[in-house]
Amino acid sequence: MSDYWNDYPKIKKNLIQVKHEIAQRLVINNQSIEEAITKFSSTGGKMIRPALFFLFADFGAEKDPEQLIKVAASLELLHSATLVHDDIIDDSPTRRGSASIQSRFGKDVAVYTGDFMYTSYFELLAESMSQTPFLLKNAQTMKKILQGELTQMTCTFNPDQTVGDYLRNINGKTAELIRLSCQEGAYFGGADKQLQARAKRIGSAIGLAFQIYDDILNFSLELGDDQKPLLSDVQQGIFTLPLLIARDQAPEIIRPYLDAPDTLTRGELIQLATHVDQTGGRSGALACAEKFTNKALNEIQQLPTGNSREVLKTVATQLLERNY
Amino acid sequence: MSDYWNDYPKIKKNLIQVKHEIAQRLVINNQSIEEAITKFSSTGGKMIRPALFFLFADFGAEKDPEQLIKVAASLELLHSATLVHDDIIDDSPTRRGSASIQSRFGKDVAVYTGDFMYTSYFELLAESMSQTPFLLKNAQTMKKILQGELTQMTCTFNPDQTVGDYLRNINGKTAELIRLSCQEGAYFGGADKQLQARAKRIGSAIGLAFQIYDDILNFSLELGDDQKPLLSDVQQGIFTLPLLIARDQAPEIIRPYLDAPDTLTRGELIQLATHVDQTGGRSGALACAEKFTNKALNEIQQLPTGNSREVLKTVATQLLERNY
Repeated sequence: MSDYWNDYPKIKKNLIQVKHEIAQRLVINNQSIEEAITKFSSTGGKMIRPALFFLFADFGAEKDPEQLIKVAASLELLHSATLVHDDIIDDSPTRRGSASIQSRFGKDVAVYTGDFMYTSYFELLAESMSQTPFLLKNAQTMKKILQGELTQMTCTFNPDQTVGDYLRNINGKTAELIRLSCQEGAYFGGADKQLQARAKRIGSAIGLAFQIYDDILNFSLELGDDQKPLLSDVQQGIFTLPLLIARDQAPEIIRPYLDAPDTLTRGELIQLATHVDQTGGRSGALACAEKFTNKALNEIQQLPTGNSREVLKTVATQLLERNY
Repeated sequence: MSDYWNDYPKIKKNLIQVKHEIAQRLVINNQSIEEAITKFSSTGGKMIRPALFFLFADFGAEKDPEQLIKVAASLELLHSATLVHDDIIDDSPTRRGSASIQSRFGKDVAVYTGDFMYTSYFELLAESMSQTPFLLKNAQTMKKILQGELTQMTCTFNPDQTVGDYLRNINGKTAELIRLSCQEGAYFGGADKQLQARAKRIGSAIGLAFQIYDDILNFSLELGDDQKPLLSDVQQGIFTLPLLIARDQAPEIIRPYLDAPDTLTRGELIQLATHVDQTGGRSGALACAEKFTNKALNEIQQLPTGNSREVLKTVATQLLERNY
């Protein structure tokens, strides 16, 4: 786990327990793979999903601490399993600062490792929520994430995809799980139905804003060391919001780049990033992300007053505050 | 579905319903992938797991027909999902007489398609057995299957693996799900605990015998059209029972072939198959498979008398009766 939660000792303590819960599930008969997946599942990432879960659990009155750890672990494990499989698709050499499972052990091990993580996720659900409506809800969430991924794949290299297609895809592949994290936090913490519904809406807005900001970063000419290479999404045929807005604003400039994006030179990519900036693609995407951020913050403001709300406000703001 | 069950109209009728149940779950936003997975999930295969499930369900007194269809569908869907991912690992061009998902749509689609099938499987469980111990049991079964696959992968190209390693691997990767199919049949059909335990033992024995016979077939010089190429397992570094027994009987003859099995010529493969035959590898493996077959048939004989038992006896015998 990164140092991201150092200022929030209560969340940090919970996340460490989640980390242990996950590590003890991922036992297989091969030490090096086991080490790799344990490291992958518990280091590097900010563990945003379980953190949001615990933040919302604070609004309820009745909690079973052991159940909360298991549910939080299920959220992180589902996320990690999808990342392991995503890295196969993307041919990613690294993930969370270490070699990805697929680059270290090959695609074959990565397929089964991701599957194995799904089984541990599923085991956690069976142990923690079989008597609740969230068992079926999880199955449906997993389905929506996969539908989002499959739909995104079928949109790949399609220069005619719309902003609506994009929003639908990220709603499945990213927002769905963040939404579930917030909603489950409220439910398993024992909050009332109204607060559960609000948690769900806040999760949606945070999830969408989070992904749009992430996609904008890929168009930033000043990249940090831990970020993906400039326009790597475009090269893989994944056309995100800044690009789609730019294309709609100035098709004659942008469209020619989209015919064979995997063949663009570094110079052409820099050109394209500049065009996306100048035609208002980046600012348009930023405005869209800000709209969702504000929606989240407005809803948070309507949560019961108290320390939990203030922490959530700060965390949401920090999470959605990046450098552009 | 193949014509395998034509002589058993009751089973066939149930399997057709299972096929429909699966098809209506596998709806995604891409017609060609949807067609491929629906076809994959419902054609070609014998649907042995749901068939065994229904055969054992017949021994119970209390049944919910809708629940039985869903549980049976979950077994077939879990099996299908593992096959889609196995084909990625094995680089299989075909599966069940059609192009495999990975050869038709690429590995990327195959990864997500398998995952998507896991989610539908999981959804079926959430709907049909959340109030029973079989929810957790399914999670554990899925885990054992994956552990079996991962362990088999780490045994690949290891010339020193033992017969014990082999049996452990097939116990996970094949017998586990067949065992669960029989056990769930008895449980969801409403049979008593003693019959459930017997069903589990019968499933184990059928599963092990089934996989050993399948592995022996790969060493047969007279191959049918729908079978894997001669010794294709050996070429992929998967050393199965006939080979391991032959190696233990005559290490000086067999061992040299195991150092770089992926470079063996067709002539050398035919030589090796002949050696495996002459050193008693095939007959030793056959004896082992027969031991498990007899164990299954003896246990079946102790089931309550009646039509269900006779059908099960015939089906188990046919299933384990192949041409060598």
